[in-house]
Amino acid sequence: MSAKILDGRALAKSITAKVKEDVASFRKEEGIVPALALVRAGEDPASVSYAKMIKRTCERVGIAFQSHILPTDVSEEEMIDRVRELNADKGVHGIIVQKPMPKSINDAAVVEALEPAKDVDGVHPLNAGRLAQAAFVDRAQDVGPYFVPSAPLAGLEILKHYGINIDGQRAVVVGASPLVGKPMALLLVQHWATVTICELHTNPLYEMTREADILCSATGVAHLITAEMVKPGATVLDFGFAKLGDRWVGDVDFEAVKEVASAITPVPGGIGPMTNVMLMRKVLEAAQRQTRFGIEFAFRITPARAFHQVTV
Amino acid sequence: MSAKILDGRALAKSITAKVKEDVASFRKEEGIVPALALVRAGEDPASVSYAKMIKRTCERVGIAFQSHILPTDVSEEEMIDRVRELNADKGVHGIIVQKPMPKSINDAAVVEALEPAKDVDGVHPLNAGRLAQAAFVDRAQDVGPYFVPSAPLAGLEILKHYGINIDGQRAVVVGASPLVGKPMALLLVQHWATVTICELHTNPLYEMTREADILCSATGVAHLITAEMVKPGATVLDFGFAKLGDRWVGDVDFEAVKEVASAITPVPGGIGPMTNVMLMRKVLEAAQRQTRFGIEFAFRITPARAFHQVTV
Repeated sequence: MSAKILDGRALAKSITAKVKEDVASFRKEEGIVPALALVRAGEDPASVSYAKMIKRTCERVGIAFQSHILPTDVSEEEMIDRVRELNADKGVHGIIVQKPMPKSINDAAVVEALEPAKDVDGVHPLNAGRLAQAAFVDRAQDVGPYFVPSAPLAGLEILKHYGINIDGQRAVVVGASPLVGKPMALLLVQHWATVTICELHTNPLYEMTREADILCSATGVAHLITAEMVKPGATVLDFGFAKLGDRWVGDVDFEAVKEVASAITPVPGGIGPMTNVMLMRKVLEAAQRQTRFGIEFAFRITPARAFHQVTV
Repeated sequence: MSAKILDGRALAKSITAKVKEDVASFRKEEGIVPALALVRAGEDPASVSYAKMIKRTCERVGIAFQSHILPTDVSEEEMIDRVRELNADKGVHGIIVQKPMPKSINDAAVVEALEPAKDVDGVHPLNAGRLAQAAFVDRAQDVGPYFVPSAPLAGLEILKHYGINIDGQRAVVVGASPLVGKPMALLLVQHWATVTICELHTNPLYEMTREADILCSATGVAHLITAEMVKPGATVLDFGFAKLGDRWVGDVDFEAVKEVASAITPVPGGIGPMTNVMLMRKVLEAAQRQTRFGIEFAFRITPARAFHQVTV
């Protein structure tokens, strides 16, 4: 029996329509256009094409998009200055800084220059830390609001939308990157899964993956996950995107695995399109928070203004 | 065959001697006494007795100890003001804020008021986030320095001291608290273990624990881990401390489990004493960084002064 296809493209379309509506209401009520600024040094081709896609997605939902392209020989100070200008700019609500940065630049210094309340990509360690420290979803929260990186947020949204139970399930995350694998694992723990994090030294990998009720793969290794590695009936989320011959494929050998799994995200058309619309939703949320609380209080925990975490 | 006892008390004693020496050299070279300040509201008995123990440990290694006891009806603003005064005080290098705080106080607001460079308990989300984002141990680091909570650091130190291999091993962490379970899991991932995080909804728990080469239990449930739940030959780290009848015991049924495991921390005398000395080591390190770089640069990532993470 073939698995249910977790159609990220269709879901992204319906969420896009909702975000577009919400952006329009926000513009009408507040007279403010939510705006996303993208900062990059140089013209790395993958970064350029990602930026184009983000621009198109912004246009689709009515979010203003600004592109700040600095020369390859920009200094770290100049790049940080640009980020600080955008932090201070009331007309900008979300900022993303693209990697790779030039070798002379310390990526972390630029990332930590971001105002956490505008860090819609969830790359600032303050956002990562609040996620890591957050309580289980049904418990009182003792951390401030935070942004989660878009790809794991997309994975969680797909599970929720399709009514796939997380609570009490075995989840296995293959790949421990700071932007996908680790935050995905933390989100699954937060939702009461028993989570195993695998990485390059996990051997044999199939022993782990075969235990998963929910298998998330985020390695970028084309067709790493074969049918034999998947437990019959599992849900499979594929965060990979890599070239195999002349095709773009995911971490998962989709054609074979869909005969074993009960539900699976295709590549393309799964996590990818959902990732973009999650980013849009966060930009809108950033604009809402900044408008309601002021930038100074949008993400800080203060006696008078404390409020709870971003819904995840 | 009975397991090797991972003698935290003996190891703590030898590390204490080393920290004492290093504190003495630092005092001699810099003319500065490393100082730890403890802030608390009210007289919760467990907090009071913990504070006494920390004071004694400080005295043992030559670290100055200050106690800032505020009344139970202190306001959040006053508590934050005290933290800020200590942040600004050049004579204070480490600050710990005790919980529970009075109900009228938002814990997170106080915690986030801490200067991360003085947050020797590793409770500030910036420290938690840098840990969560840190690369594998043998890879280039793209995060700033950070403090790890003392208990997981103690667990790691014990594994290292006794030459227990982590790389490629299956580790299972029972309990997903922000100060023990989750940072322990992240440290083990960082050292190339394949890590499973279990929590209250993990069922049956024994299926998970029996897979562990390294089993860490951090729940506070007395004798949760019985011999049947442990894989023969496993290493067992017990982070628990709870009353069972009139004895203090750990999460692990020590007498039974030591006949199955190959190595095990006793309670008391395992993780506990190591936790205290790890805290002392971090206070010294905080003093060293603040003296070398100034408080402003002790933990910030700056072009000129960037340096890498706390060795974990």
